Amino acid sequence: MTQDPLVIFTPSGKRGRFAVGTPVLTAARQLGVDLDSVCGGRGICSKCQITPSYGDFPKHGVTVSEGALSDWNAVEQRYDDKRGLKAGRRLGCQAVVQGDIVIDVPPESQVHKQVVRKAASARVIEMDPATRLYFVEVDEPDMHEPTGDLERLERALKAQWNIDGIEIDFAVLAGLQTVLRKGKWQITVALYTAHKQTKPRVIAAWPALHESGLFGLAIDLGSTTIAAHLTDLETGLVVASSGIMNPQIRFGEDLMSRVSYAMMNPGGDREMTKAVRDAIDTLALDIAKEAEIDTSLILETVFVCNPVMHHLLLGIDPVELGQAPFALATSEPMNLSASELGLSALPAAARIYILPCIAGHVGADAAAVALSEEPGKSEDLVLIVDVGTNAEILLGDTARVLACSSPTGPAFEGAQISSGQRAAPGAIEAIRIDPVTKDPRFRVIGCDLWSDEDGFWDHTAQTGITGICGSGIIEAVAEMRIAGLLDPSGLIGSAEQTGTARSEPEGRTHSYLIHDGSAEGGPRITVTQGDIRAIQLAKSALYAGARLLMDVRGVDKVDRVVLAGAFGAHISPLHAMVLGMIPDVPIDKVQSAGNAAGTGARIALCNLAARRDVERMVREITKVETAIEPKFQEHFVAANAIPHATDPFPELSSKVTLPKVSFNTNGGDGAGGRRRRRRG
Amino acid sequence: MTQDPLVIFTPSGKRGRFAVGTPVLTAARQLGVDLDSVCGGRGICSKCQITPSYGDFPKHGVTVSEGALSDWNAVEQRYDDKRGLKAGRRLGCQAVVQGDIVIDVPPESQVHKQVVRKAASARVIEMDPATRLYFVEVDEPDMHEPTGDLERLERALKAQWNIDGIEIDFAVLAGLQTVLRKGKWQITVALYTAHKQTKPRVIAAWPALHESGLFGLAIDLGSTTIAAHLTDLETGLVVASSGIMNPQIRFGEDLMSRVSYAMMNPGGDREMTKAVRDAIDTLALDIAKEAEIDTSLILETVFVCNPVMHHLLLGIDPVELGQAPFALATSEPMNLSASELGLSALPAAARIYILPCIAGHVGADAAAVALSEEPGKSEDLVLIVDVGTNAEILLGDTARVLACSSPTGPAFEGAQISSGQRAAPGAIEAIRIDPVTKDPRFRVIGCDLWSDEDGFWDHTAQTGITGICGSGIIEAVAEMRIAGLLDPSGLIGSAEQTGTARSEPEGRTHSYLIHDGSAEGGPRITVTQGDIRAIQLAKSALYAGARLLMDVRGVDKVDRVVLAGAFGAHISPLHAMVLGMIPDVPIDKVQSAGNAAGTGARIALCNLAARRDVERMVREITKVETAIEPKFQEHFVAANAIPHATDPFPELSSKVTLPKVSFNTNGGDGAGGRRRRRRG
Repeated sequence: MTQDPLVIFTPSGKRGRFAVGTPVLTAARQLGVDLDSVCGGRGICSKCQITPSYGDFPKHGVTVSEGALSDWNAVEQRYDDKRGLKAGRRLGCQAVVQGDIVIDVPPESQVHKQVVRKAASARVIEMDPATRLYFVEVDEPDMHEPTGDLERLERALKAQWNIDGIEIDFAVLAGLQTVLRKGKWQITVALYTAHKQTKPRVIAAWPALHESGLFGLAIDLGSTTIAAHLTDLETGLVVASSGIMNPQIRFGEDLMSRVSYAMMNPGGDREMTKAVRDAIDTLALDIAKEAEIDTSLILETVFVCNPVMHHLLLGIDPVELGQAPFALATSEPMNLSASELGLSALPAAARIYILPCIAGHVGADAAAVALSEEPGKSEDLVLIVDVGTNAEILLGDTARVLACSSPTGPAFEGAQISSGQRAAPGAIEAIRIDPVTKDPRFRVIGCDLWSDEDGFWDHTAQTGITGICGSGIIEAVAEMRIAGLLDPSGLIGSAEQTGTARSEPEGRTHSYLIHDGSAEGGPRITVTQGDIRAIQLAKSALYAGARLLMDVRGVDKVDRVVLAGAFGAHISPLHAMVLGMIPDVPIDKVQSAGNAAGTGARIALCNLAARRDVERMVREITKVETAIEPKFQEHFVAANAIPHATDPFPELSSKVTLPKVSFNTNGGDGAGGRRRRRRG
Repeated sequence: MTQDPLVIFTPSGKRGRFAVGTPVLTAARQLGVDLDSVCGGRGICSKCQITPSYGDFPKHGVTVSEGALSDWNAVEQRYDDKRGLKAGRRLGCQAVVQGDIVIDVPPESQVHKQVVRKAASARVIEMDPATRLYFVEVDEPDMHEPTGDLERLERALKAQWNIDGIEIDFAVLAGLQTVLRKGKWQITVALYTAHKQTKPRVIAAWPALHESGLFGLAIDLGSTTIAAHLTDLETGLVVASSGIMNPQIRFGEDLMSRVSYAMMNPGGDREMTKAVRDAIDTLALDIAKEAEIDTSLILETVFVCNPVMHHLLLGIDPVELGQAPFALATSEPMNLSASELGLSALPAAARIYILPCIAGHVGADAAAVALSEEPGKSEDLVLIVDVGTNAEILLGDTARVLACSSPTGPAFEGAQISSGQRAAPGAIEAIRIDPVTKDPRFRVIGCDLWSDEDGFWDHTAQTGITGICGSGIIEAVAEMRIAGLLDPSGLIGSAEQTGTARSEPEGRTHSYLIHDGSAEGGPRITVTQGDIRAIQLAKSALYAGARLLMDVRGVDKVDRVVLAGAFGAHISPLHAMVLGMIPDVPIDKVQSAGNAAGTGARIALCNLAARRDVERMVREITKVETAIEPKFQEHFVAANAIPHATDPFPELSSKVTLPKVSFNTNGGDGAGGRRRRRRG
């Protein structure tokens, strides 16, 4: 008796013997090989494409002969005629085993494919979406055995996919009869599974085979900006990205001013809730238009946001977050429908997942950073700083992770800075000041040249030099310190003290002129004493938060620092350290993680297990409340100096020598550290 | 060593020994005695009132001394001062065991109390509501251990009530923080449990102890009328009943004309959905006003209705129910929130339960009749007829239950009858015709006297004699047959043929004058040949449906008949049988069940287990579709005669002798049985 043919799948290496005549898809399923299928083996969805290999495979110990799979059949021919199959590809549900065979499952045929991010970090996202498509053929109704259409759909899912029990969104139920009849009793349903333990929920249904795909939105809902990535839930690829300003800004620049607005104005919370929901609707419509898809295909949305945004999005008055003990209504992850959340641009049945909050001031955005950067898996002690209007700070390693938030204010985003602007073409993003001449050279967004290089002015003629963005202001202040234009207390020296006419008097203080565009009708771009104070406040808050976590952890240095946030990737590590934004570490140990919160949202969107991971992480994280720790105030005051009043920065000193200057002529301390701060 | 005191509870008879100092509530809980408590033993809700008994109890083998319970304490005194405790009552959570004691739990202290219906039937409803109140004290938030308010509520319910895990309605979550602070961290939550397996869901929350009760609506959503009973979900008592016309009538009198409206008018289904939802909102507001409660206290609503009403209520186009194979979108029971169902008069989080449908033409109303009348528990073979615009018919015993619906049309409700009207003061509800003089005497709603009794005309002067209601028209037609005014084919004889001037010519037919009120400005009330035809159509449909079930069951007689429906209770069994509405049975075997569908709704509202019962019953019932059974047409035609063309009515004959008359002078059959019928 001869043995059944041996079937070997790559890249998994799974293998088994199957009777002649077994479809490849069947063999894959029995071995637990990750081979996709929406139509359940009917040869119409093409998701189960495989590539057979022929010849000698000493590694696998088999020789594959030409006839190892059945001949190309009519179903495959029809599919190839209609849509085209790549050379060498077969449909796994049509090709049947005839002899020993090696079969490669290409990434696009894997459900749990890995999606490589474009960003520098090599981190990949594994696909394991909560929502998947299932094609079924439903029995027609029979008067003699009356059952509802829904019950027959349920029976078909059980018989054809072994799915035991479903729920259906009420909005989908209302259209079910029409869809079934339009598809002549063939239907594709989108099943959403919140947890492995819950029944799958029908959240969309289309007649016959649905081939227009399935999409999700990962939304980073910030105090200042709302950023969204439209993601293909089958491939995991981002098909469009878009962002808009958070319209709540008109109620207050930072978080605490919005909470105040809610406290002072009855119904103010509802106004802000409506504003942000309307903005999300607009964003969803815009991004769908950009990607040329219908919004009806956006079936999942994941939100990350700080606690105040979280409550306002959910329609919960954030007033409790404005006063000790900063109690959240709930810190649990939220699973909702779009209709419950009052989002009208999305299908009523579309699912919303909001990551859990960590504490009253440490939100789902910090949780998302934890999910993306995984400090709990770090062997060395890592400090992760997500820079924004409110900074999320995480410190940890495999032993323990701590988190806090710190109210940096919007200065790092270029707001409340005299020449500040959002990162856009024309904005200065990098700057160097010659220590001798005290003259600057700079680069603007939209042009790769420095301002002292040939062609710079031609290239930038169209945009002009319009202002300074967040990373630009950090470099400007740090360079002013390096060049001796600024003393450690943050005072800008006069023309006499610094030896440059670019130090211009402005009332009783001075400002530094970077660029005078007035001849061309552009702005005069300066760094004022007020700008320095705003940056000092911001960086002190950031540093104090980090130090507080280090205190709680019982360390006075960290092994590495990760700068995250919308513009975290653009911050120069050296300049950040000159400023004293972050603790002293070797410069090459300062890494950039891009928009880690947004990445966390994308991971949660694409991977159901990641939602469980982040829920577990949040429970395990040690929460530190900066607002009530007396040490925070101490750290804050000490961090006001540039880089720091007391903490040594030996790694920094090994790279750059900061001039010992002092421009204080009246004996005052000149520091602005005791000004009232607001959370934001 | 002396034994612990013996504690005996009545009426349960449960007993056990408890240490001196054990609170009575604790003892009751440990023994599984049904003793209510909302506040969890804090002496504030008073739900756990008990009555201790003292003296010799030979039956129980104990003697109870005066000091068997602890003295009346300050908590009880405070409660008594504030609200008053009935004489002899104690609070079970305050009184502690000191010696052998016999304790009676009065019905109002039992959760699972039995509610006796006012109706004739002795059937009781046992309370086992899906929604119950729980009072808890929630920990205040602690900045050093940040948790959401919801998570602390969850922890309190676990610690104080051993409730493991909750869900919360999104609408309740939004207000949770305010409620907790208003109640100084004491809160009463209403927890709804859909199934024993699902997590309880917080559907309402009030500060501190909620004492305004908890209510539910049982709604019988009929084609013509919508009837609601507002029920106290703690006591089970109906606190108000109200009804309004179904506004969908403007889109069509009967079900099929409404389905046609939806087919012919795009968006017509949505118009009808809006109309019925608006009507339910109005009804809820009216009934709450009548009972002087706030609608925010109406936390559950149970609906029973036929399949077309079911789909239109849910916002599902009923078009499939208008054509074979009459496929329902779903036949499953529905669990929804008021906001999902678009009912705005109820709290957004209020729960809606809609009983399951049996088949495309046999709805949740028939299921409710099955729940109320329990044919499956009957030892003898019972035929249950729920008379309405569409009749629900059930036939069964412990062996098997069958169900169908039959399109009787609105004639039995007094519609499409020349002098017909709804049951209201002034409507003739009973009539007798003297076989010799052929003169009628009658009774009208609002007066207990017959029209030939002294004082009748004075009593009715205010309302006048305004028309004939459903039960009146049944009696009128039957009496006309008994008095020889009507022949078996349904023809009214002329004045010459009948010997009375009350037989008045009307075109080529005759009508019978019951009362001429024209002298007083009232109507002339007659029964026309057209009225007879309408009644014949209706009663033939009813009888044919019953016969069809008997065919399927293989019997040609039943043991008893139950007449149900809004006016089923008012139908005279003898007259119904003369008419041939129902099969021949001994007159004393014709019973009245009142509004059985409405009672079924009330049972499902008050008792969670009953929802599981009806879901099981519906699965087990044999569905019979009248619309496609050729035998139904045969039965329908044969049933046109009064009482019947072929079926013998021996029981009827033993009670009354019907005159053998024939008024057909032109050889035609005179029957209207082949007119097109419409479902309704």
